[in-house]
Amino acid sequence: MKDEANKVSEKAFASESGDMNAADFRRYGREMVDWIADYFENIEQLPVLSQNEPNELKNALPKSAPETGEDFADIFADVEKLILPAITNWNHPNFHGLFSTSTSAVGIFGEMLSAAFDMKAMLWRTSPASTELEEVVLDWLRQIMNLDAGLKGIIYDTASVSTLHAIAAAREGLNLRIREDGMSGRKDLPLLRIYTSEQSHSSVEKAVILLGLGQKSLVKIPTNERFEIDSIKLREAIETDKKYGFLPFCVVATVGTTSTTSIDPIEEIVPICEENAMWLHVDAAYAGSAAIVPELQSCLKGCERADSVVTNPHKWLFTPFDLSILYCRHLDLLKKAFSLVPEYLKTNETVTNQMDYGIQLGRRFRSLKLWFVIRYFGQTGLQTRIREHCRLAKLFALWIEKSEDWELLAPVPFALVCFRACPKDVEDLNALNEKLMNAVNESGEAYISHTKLNDNFTLRVSVGSIRAEERHIEKLWNLLNEQLKSLKK
Amino acid sequence: MKDEANKVSEKAFASESGDMNAADFRRYGREMVDWIADYFENIEQLPVLSQNEPNELKNALPKSAPETGEDFADIFADVEKLILPAITNWNHPNFHGLFSTSTSAVGIFGEMLSAAFDMKAMLWRTSPASTELEEVVLDWLRQIMNLDAGLKGIIYDTASVSTLHAIAAAREGLNLRIREDGMSGRKDLPLLRIYTSEQSHSSVEKAVILLGLGQKSLVKIPTNERFEIDSIKLREAIETDKKYGFLPFCVVATVGTTSTTSIDPIEEIVPICEENAMWLHVDAAYAGSAAIVPELQSCLKGCERADSVVTNPHKWLFTPFDLSILYCRHLDLLKKAFSLVPEYLKTNETVTNQMDYGIQLGRRFRSLKLWFVIRYFGQTGLQTRIREHCRLAKLFALWIEKSEDWELLAPVPFALVCFRACPKDVEDLNALNEKLMNAVNESGEAYISHTKLNDNFTLRVSVGSIRAEERHIEKLWNLLNEQLKSLKK
Repeated sequence: MKDEANKVSEKAFASESGDMNAADFRRYGREMVDWIADYFENIEQLPVLSQNEPNELKNALPKSAPETGEDFADIFADVEKLILPAITNWNHPNFHGLFSTSTSAVGIFGEMLSAAFDMKAMLWRTSPASTELEEVVLDWLRQIMNLDAGLKGIIYDTASVSTLHAIAAAREGLNLRIREDGMSGRKDLPLLRIYTSEQSHSSVEKAVILLGLGQKSLVKIPTNERFEIDSIKLREAIETDKKYGFLPFCVVATVGTTSTTSIDPIEEIVPICEENAMWLHVDAAYAGSAAIVPELQSCLKGCERADSVVTNPHKWLFTPFDLSILYCRHLDLLKKAFSLVPEYLKTNETVTNQMDYGIQLGRRFRSLKLWFVIRYFGQTGLQTRIREHCRLAKLFALWIEKSEDWELLAPVPFALVCFRACPKDVEDLNALNEKLMNAVNESGEAYISHTKLNDNFTLRVSVGSIRAEERHIEKLWNLLNEQLKSLKK
Repeated sequence: MKDEANKVSEKAFASESGDMNAADFRRYGREMVDWIADYFENIEQLPVLSQNEPNELKNALPKSAPETGEDFADIFADVEKLILPAITNWNHPNFHGLFSTSTSAVGIFGEMLSAAFDMKAMLWRTSPASTELEEVVLDWLRQIMNLDAGLKGIIYDTASVSTLHAIAAAREGLNLRIREDGMSGRKDLPLLRIYTSEQSHSSVEKAVILLGLGQKSLVKIPTNERFEIDSIKLREAIETDKKYGFLPFCVVATVGTTSTTSIDPIEEIVPICEENAMWLHVDAAYAGSAAIVPELQSCLKGCERADSVVTNPHKWLFTPFDLSILYCRHLDLLKKAFSLVPEYLKTNETVTNQMDYGIQLGRRFRSLKLWFVIRYFGQTGLQTRIREHCRLAKLFALWIEKSEDWELLAPVPFALVCFRACPKDVEDLNALNEKLMNAVNESGEAYISHTKLNDNFTLRVSVGSIRAEERHIEKLWNLLNEQLKSLKK
């Protein structure tokens, strides 16, 4: 760590048993800012996937904590020496695996300040800033996404938790006294049923398990050739279930599925839900961010009649992890499902206490970083970046379409490309593509991931880093072609 | 914002559609570090509770997002102007409400770095550093707390979520196919029962509601005059329930309850759980940190036979929110309850993928800040601070005991004092004490909170800030006595 000692403040933070003194905080804080700046400036020299072996970091660390305190300079030196090689660099512009996400500088600033304030935003009075800024900023984003004003936002940590809360509210809306009497040991409850597509995210099934509904409650409806839910089969499944005496109560549709970013036909699903008095939750964790771009807004068409929509600014809106938003038309039901106020949390203010809306009591001051992001880039700045990612993905898709050695395996509505190598002279394409993926990833030059579509091992390339430029997509394309050539030898 | 322009790096982070350039990041980052240092140096000049009226911040903010991006200097100026007055200053040494918590400088550094890396620690390969550091650091803390080596740690966001996972694992351990078949519409399931004390945290009841067990499943056992669970009544309740055909499966005991920090007799509860094959979860969210001090370690006696223990370093171990640890003897059951691996997350490594152990798929790199905290302060440094807080609380309790105008309403095992004003010439002590609390809080000089004990309105003073010194406790004592005098006029 460089020694660039700044002026030393003479006033320490606190007594001997207190915190680091102010001078050290300033000095190390500035060094850390510079270290982070260097990290971003040199990130393309780092491997995307950590090249560490399993347990390499673990084995390099002492088995017990130090007895006495250490100099922060020594601790920080270990970040460079031990932690950095064990990092998979999500901010690397050639991170194309899973969904490519990235933070922005102002997002980091937001987390710095939020960590300093260290609020637990349970009650309004313990966190007016968090409570009110959240309301305002989520309404800003709702407007930019052109979502219906009846949808009010609340921040959770992850889409898994947002979706869990939506389904919990839907369950509460049944008025079956499940909150009070539960489900076990009751003879009066039918099997509850919830519907989603075969392509929906695993978080839906996890939520169903956690809520005690059981995997049996979850009906996975087949998708069409574009990996979108078949709404006719959805309707049929609901009708059949009702005949059996089951109770359909919720549909989870997806705008931007994880495997292919396919878009369920929300407008066809809405009337099915309305006719059957079912809750419609839309998982737009990924593609919700795309809806800030006017020409992509149609992907959320129909959501003006949905009961809830989840979108994750930490996925594709340059906001550090974690920040997931549940837009919900029935905050009253969410509150009814979750509110419990023990004596020690009772206050006299007639205000929103956000602890009433979820399983978590304390909440981090997350709206701050999103406020920074939206103000710093502005609506047009964010739109430009999302548009550019879609352009790059479509360019990559075009190269694939033009090449005889490659083929697309799914449409490209946003910024994810599903494809595979399909050279004529190779028989086992699944084995070839898996080898190809591993070769790319082991190179450290890029990270791509996979899925299975119609039993085909499918490569996935996601473009979403704020640092992604055309040259990175070109680099990946060349890398893939080189690896293919060498594998065919 | 001060202009202290540093040398401008010529290389921007990325293209025009990329992130803030490196020079600006360095400049604003350093200014932010200095701003945070100033904030901590001047924190005693700020009111503890925000003096804002409800909606004051909200009304001061624009109703829509800016079209184009703004200078970060302007955004940051609004932090000082608009956000700061809306902050309840949890780091203020006279924050004695709820539980007094505080971050430390190195904790903030940990969050800065973690935000920069912006990892989503779902798979080992996407986050070897997070996966392995978490294992190592949680084992360090386990040793310092003198917990049994059979307890393996995993980090969640909050104790509410840790406890939820513990109960979910307990439910899975019943082997009743609840994961697969759920609970609704089944005739073969008995009413499941879970036991806790009347003094336990609301998160237990919230978890029971979310899990679909229902409030009816939760049996709240009365406590003795020290607010500890009555283990004889616990045993009786379980036996009675079994006679009715109910299925007792879990006890949640508390070490350090929220109202009074009372300690349930774990050693008496252990045999009851073992005889009845029930899961014992211990909520030590608050007092777990005390167990790092050898002379306080007895508070966890019996936990060597518990199935799970939750402790929150973000409460009383100078680690910024959020970081809750579930130490669990049966990670296999937790995995059985939660693991679901879709194709796009399948990998070939035989490693721990932490997404398998919880509802959340992505996880923040939280172990980094705890690693910083433990190394920077060392075991003895942390012990010194916890000991000092306990000494200050006991000193405060002593002043109360010595005064005729005040009385203690609960024992003080750690660093929380429950008490009230009881001047001889006032009849309605509840009204008096509520007024007293409000007067103290409205002064902005300190923040205290309340609970109800035996129908008595009880004041709570928690000592836990890393900045708390004897002079702060003295200040609070003087403030309380002044307010009492003026209320009696």
